[in-house]
Amino acid sequence: MSSKEIKRTERTRVRRIPKRGAYDRASVYQILDEGFICHVGFTVDEKTFVIPTGYARIGDNLLIHGSAASRMMREMTSGIEVCVTVTLIDGLVLARSAFHHSMNYRSVVVFGTAELVENETEKYEALRLFTEHIVPQRWDDVRPPTAKELKATTVLRLPIQEASAKVRTGNPVDDEADYDLNIWAGVIPVQLKTGEAFDDGKLKENVSVPSYVSNYKRGENKQR
Amino acid sequence: MSSKEIKRTERTRVRRIPKRGAYDRASVYQILDEGFICHVGFTVDEKTFVIPTGYARIGDNLLIHGSAASRMMREMTSGIEVCVTVTLIDGLVLARSAFHHSMNYRSVVVFGTAELVENETEKYEALRLFTEHIVPQRWDDVRPPTAKELKATTVLRLPIQEASAKVRTGNPVDDEADYDLNIWAGVIPVQLKTGEAFDDGKLKENVSVPSYVSNYKRGENKQR
Repeated sequence: MSSKEIKRTERTRVRRIPKRGAYDRASVYQILDEGFICHVGFTVDEKTFVIPTGYARIGDNLLIHGSAASRMMREMTSGIEVCVTVTLIDGLVLARSAFHHSMNYRSVVVFGTAELVENETEKYEALRLFTEHIVPQRWDDVRPPTAKELKATTVLRLPIQEASAKVRTGNPVDDEADYDLNIWAGVIPVQLKTGEAFDDGKLKENVSVPSYVSNYKRGENKQR
Repeated sequence: MSSKEIKRTERTRVRRIPKRGAYDRASVYQILDEGFICHVGFTVDEKTFVIPTGYARIGDNLLIHGSAASRMMREMTSGIEVCVTVTLIDGLVLARSAFHHSMNYRSVVVFGTAELVENETEKYEALRLFTEHIVPQRWDDVRPPTAKELKATTVLRLPIQEASAKVRTGNPVDDEADYDLNIWAGVIPVQLKTGEAFDDGKLKENVSVPSYVSNYKRGENKQR
């Protein structure tokens, strides 16, 4: 792994509320590892597209699942400039004034040139990581990809060289005078939660639900 | 409200899996009204940015909270081309094959020119809608924005003229031969849930938690 601090650039520097910015790999990677959907922005023929897709991190690279990225592929010879954003929402922040209403969140932005992963071994490993990132332990149970399926899957690799995190936590911050008002203020926590898994009704008789499914949780235990 | 169907264009047409596409305003608006974070993509000096921010819908317009959009503002004279994406994740789809793993989701993409809302009355109404979109009934309780606060807030208006929804629901779809495998397959439902609200410890003595906070829920009851 490269240096702990990520170099700040003009576009990664958090300008509006600088104290919310973080530029160390630990902060950035914790957010990337907890999330599992990113929004990939890119420009084709002067038009900007923002597409949600899955991803995984391996070391200092972000692997982006390219099935949704077919629009990129037309232009894809020597890589494409992208901005990848991952956003986790942690709470709704209710202040005494409308103006200071906010959200608690953790977000990461990564800028760079995404390149097509063409090597078959690397691609296979990327598919394993996509699956394991979303459902740990799943890979060993599934029917692995065939050569044809590998070919049908697009994987992009984005080095995490130009990136920053932005984090807001805690209580609302009101104007001093507003604390005298008879208005409730606080935080409504928000979290992505999983419900009880259901099977597709087409299981073979002797198949039971794996513990990594019945005990599935996202959040704290996903960090690595 | 304009026609029920939204005109399809080259960039809104869902190409990869066409049956997942929806182009009627009801489908698009239901997703926009349930979500509350969008990812705004735009290009400045040939660089693409994707920024998460709050929004609200009024009729056939999307109002985007511009505090996070300060980068846009430099270029903002006659509007800026944006792509706004809202993504709701509903489930993790575990197929028998790695290849057919998927997610259940509902997403909306809106393309267009976002314009600065400068009229004070309109801006005030936008702030009300931002608040009410996230926490219905909150507006009547808060200390309303001052003229100075209004000035400090940036609001963008994006007409919903070029937009589409993309939706995946239901079970995994495996290759016919794979249904014979002894592999569990199904869906782990995923939902954004709220926890118990907590106050900021600075309430006046007689202030109790409002019912719109203690009974706060997102999801089905947010559609309008």
